[in-house]
Amino acid sequence: MSDPCGTRDKILEVARSQFARNGYHGTSMDAIVKDTGLSKGALYWHFDGKSELFAAVLRREVDGIIHSHVEALREKGEGVRSFVTLRGERIIEMLWKDREMRLLFFTLFIERLRGGQEGRELSEIAGNLLGIIQAKLWPVAREVFPAFRDGEARGDYQRMVTTLRFLMNGIIMELGFNLDLDSARELWRFAIGRFDFESEVFK
Amino acid sequence: MSDPCGTRDKILEVARSQFARNGYHGTSMDAIVKDTGLSKGALYWHFDGKSELFAAVLRREVDGIIHSHVEALREKGEGVRSFVTLRGERIIEMLWKDREMRLLFFTLFIERLRGGQEGRELSEIAGNLLGIIQAKLWPVAREVFPAFRDGEARGDYQRMVTTLRFLMNGIIMELGFNLDLDSARELWRFAIGRFDFESEVFK
Repeated sequence: MSDPCGTRDKILEVARSQFARNGYHGTSMDAIVKDTGLSKGALYWHFDGKSELFAAVLRREVDGIIHSHVEALREKGEGVRSFVTLRGERIIEMLWKDREMRLLFFTLFIERLRGGQEGRELSEIAGNLLGIIQAKLWPVAREVFPAFRDGEARGDYQRMVTTLRFLMNGIIMELGFNLDLDSARELWRFAIGRFDFESEVFK
Repeated sequence: MSDPCGTRDKILEVARSQFARNGYHGTSMDAIVKDTGLSKGALYWHFDGKSELFAAVLRREVDGIIHSHVEALREKGEGVRSFVTLRGERIIEMLWKDREMRLLFFTLFIERLRGGQEGRELSEIAGNLLGIIQAKLWPVAREVFPAFRDGEARGDYQRMVTTLRFLMNGIIMELGFNLDLDSARELWRFAIGRFDFESEVFK
């Protein structure tokens, strides 16, 4: 992991911007060599190939998102509604500011859907990322959501979390087009308001 | 519009599959010429260029979706909840079966987000399509949703419709990956259940 010259970070920066701008197919290891000014050997010393590099770029994005989530742990005694609302708004703001991050995730989604050999590789990358997110968020969720602790209300809880996750994806898709930042936040709060966090199921 | 040999339809079929498989950038008019076996002149006689062709492909998809919606008009006296639930499930089923249709819409979304000259063209295409959908669905909606008639409850109604539209996009994104057909339908019904269609606001 030692990288005193910051070569790995530099590669990741260049690759991030190329994958976002040109998509997965439109990005080549050669073009990254050219843009970083490194030798081909130096690039391959850090990353075995394009799919490994793309996975590393996405991993760094996910770490950034998790970081902003894990901070939530520090606000002890926070209610479920406020937790979900604020964390969601934070994600919306982060992605609003960062069009490249949105492009990276949509690139992953679309290539996975496209299928073939590359699609399968990217589907595996997506699965691993989701695994990482879940492993890191699980302890936070159990801290904040009482229902996650006793397992009693898993069914409805799980459905609520899934509904909000998919709604978030749909919101992110429209950011900057049919949705500005304030409308996105407002819509998120409106949706949260549909769930009765005080009901017996969610206690 | 006369096209006795079905040349236009043939071009649209080939273009649909190429845009879905290779994306917008990865598809060229030359490759479509090759796959259709037509002359370049014949292709350009029907379509001025790639963006016009892509718009026509998407337009045909939207017409198909609208058709399955407009049928709804025939079920007079249908309640709001049942209308939203069944129409949503129909869309989910349609897209579940048709991976290419999903790819076409995601291609539009991602290229629009990518920006640049092509992004702006595709953003305009997306805007036009949304305009067509809204113009056609508006009379249906006013038939089924009483609140659309008097304009009284527009705010909350609009937010509900938007929330469900974005949730639908998020569901479609995950179809075949973290979501099979039955789970997608179940999630849709669960989300619909969060809205109290019998409340005063929605009367």
